Amino acid sequence: MTSTATRAPVRVILFGMGTVGRAALRLARTRQWLHPVGAVIGSSASARGRIESGEHPADLRWSTDADLLLDQLRPEVALIATRSPVADVKEDIIRCVERGVSVVTSSEEMFDPNVADPSAAGEIEAACRAGGAAVVATGINPGYVFDVIPVVIAGASWDVQRVSVTRMLDCSVFGRTVHRLLGVGYSPAGFEEARRAGIIRGHIGFEESARVIARVMGRDLDRFEENVRPLIAEQTYQLAEYVVSAGETAGVVQDATGWVGGTPWLRFDLSLHVDPESVGIQTRDHIRIEGENTLDVTIQPGTQSILTTSALLVNTIPSVLSAPPGLYTATDLLPAAPWLDADPPPGIRRRIQG
Amino acid sequence: MTSTATRAPVRVILFGMGTVGRAALRLARTRQWLHPVGAVIGSSASARGRIESGEHPADLRWSTDADLLLDQLRPEVALIATRSPVADVKEDIIRCVERGVSVVTSSEEMFDPNVADPSAAGEIEAACRAGGAAVVATGINPGYVFDVIPVVIAGASWDVQRVSVTRMLDCSVFGRTVHRLLGVGYSPAGFEEARRAGIIRGHIGFEESARVIARVMGRDLDRFEENVRPLIAEQTYQLAEYVVSAGETAGVVQDATGWVGGTPWLRFDLSLHVDPESVGIQTRDHIRIEGENTLDVTIQPGTQSILTTSALLVNTIPSVLSAPPGLYTATDLLPAAPWLDADPPPGIRRRIQG
Repeated sequence: MTSTATRAPVRVILFGMGTVGRAALRLARTRQWLHPVGAVIGSSASARGRIESGEHPADLRWSTDADLLLDQLRPEVALIATRSPVADVKEDIIRCVERGVSVVTSSEEMFDPNVADPSAAGEIEAACRAGGAAVVATGINPGYVFDVIPVVIAGASWDVQRVSVTRMLDCSVFGRTVHRLLGVGYSPAGFEEARRAGIIRGHIGFEESARVIARVMGRDLDRFEENVRPLIAEQTYQLAEYVVSAGETAGVVQDATGWVGGTPWLRFDLSLHVDPESVGIQTRDHIRIEGENTLDVTIQPGTQSILTTSALLVNTIPSVLSAPPGLYTATDLLPAAPWLDADPPPGIRRRIQG
Repeated sequence: MTSTATRAPVRVILFGMGTVGRAALRLARTRQWLHPVGAVIGSSASARGRIESGEHPADLRWSTDADLLLDQLRPEVALIATRSPVADVKEDIIRCVERGVSVVTSSEEMFDPNVADPSAAGEIEAACRAGGAAVVATGINPGYVFDVIPVVIAGASWDVQRVSVTRMLDCSVFGRTVHRLLGVGYSPAGFEEARRAGIIRGHIGFEESARVIARVMGRDLDRFEENVRPLIAEQTYQLAEYVVSAGETAGVVQDATGWVGGTPWLRFDLSLHVDPESVGIQTRDHIRIEGENTLDVTIQPGTQSILTTSALLVNTIPSVLSAPPGLYTATDLLPAAPWLDADPPPGIRRRIQG
């Protein structure tokens, strides 16, 4: 049932038609070697409205019934851009891989599912091997700025005294649902309450990124600590979906520290704001690996979240289809790269249509 | 004869004790999971002088006889840092891999040996498969700034309208032998003569880097063009080994352009000087991938050539020992990463000592 010789486009199914899913669909349509055949959408009215009003390929099938689409469309790879927690994507991942459909997901926790849910990671790994499919998570973060890029830069390192990554980003590209999770659009009291209740998690994935960096370098983090605090608006911000008033949270500052042998070894800082320039923040990503051959890297302007995450989903397809069945972290696969030819990349795993 | 379970240090042999080889030895000694067991040196008096005057591990064996050392020391991996041309390293590579010793080399042409010498590439590939060993070339360039880093950064790209890389570097870290090849330390007339005679090649490896970038992205370069011109000293520069006088070449500027479909798609610029600050050049590496999600990356100060190349040689050992037998370009292996644990990385190919 597998072959590496066919020149037919690779059949892709998407799970989730939020901002990332829609961007991934738009990008996949520009790659001649990819054929987006279907989209699994949520059952909410807004999910249905988004797909009905969007410009999609005439032959794109969509449904809330994932099993139906998987069985009827027989895709070769799935891009799952629905939710962050392992618990929320596990079922969709397993229904794909048990049918031999490999998965690239933007779920932050799936970047290293052993942090949040080792037992789910084991289940997914077993399903991958049984179904003959591979799974990996990627995105701007985790998947790029806070882990893959630092690890690749560190290829030139001697000792590694300290890893630090700073990202300042414009979060106006996200909708209100994501803002609520990030901590944007709250009164100060509401922010504290939502943070205590675990509704606000800030950016998800710092611990996953940190543990992957450490593991790739043969280090073990003996302690990991994270903080998030609000940036209060001093003016009104009119956003696409709603208004952030003066006195409400217009952004957050988040940091994380990882210790090795009792010493701070890794430091992450993330500032996000609905209008960074208004508060004097220039978007940028900064990576510094200190040691005998210190490496200091700046991406400026900072990488745009939606475009970057959707690109990584699509550009990881060749890597995930080249890997033996299993559950991977992105650092255990060949790095994502944009495949620009009309024919599919050589050597990828194909499923011949029955 | 192979195992993945042993915790014994990986036995390393070095070929070449120039600046890069000596730096790689110094770094390898700091990695507890590596054991540098021998060094193959050139037959010149200076090669012998360098190793006799250097601070080396008491048990490091050295000889001009590579076969003798390989047979007696039974290393598991070789770091070959001798010459740039495929023709000059082929014999040493083959004598390693036919004994099952995998190779990481700083030979620029070996980064994509099919550019300079497809028939030698075929011979090496066959020897790898027969001997059960893997070969890859790496270094600052090719291997990092002009290819691996741009490809990994481009993982976030949509279209790729144009790839450009600029590197400005301090070449005072190299000795006179390398300067003669780069084009430094000549009179203007001597420079022209040496360039026409093919003695001056400037930086070697631009075409290899360019073709690897294109191939990884599914593009084909239909034209490739390179230029090198001298930077004339306006003052005297006292270097470690010799003097560059005013009126002589103190650096070179080199550029390369690669065309896809008749359009310039890739551009490399390299400026090197024995004292960049004296002429207002700040060392830096700059990578820009233009397209719908333009990515603009600066490494500043620019990566130091010797420290970076030697680190990449050592940090690529886990990747080359994890790969199935064969001849690889660095982009077809997991990226180099510094392994900092005392025990060898899990999953690498080991040779049990008889």
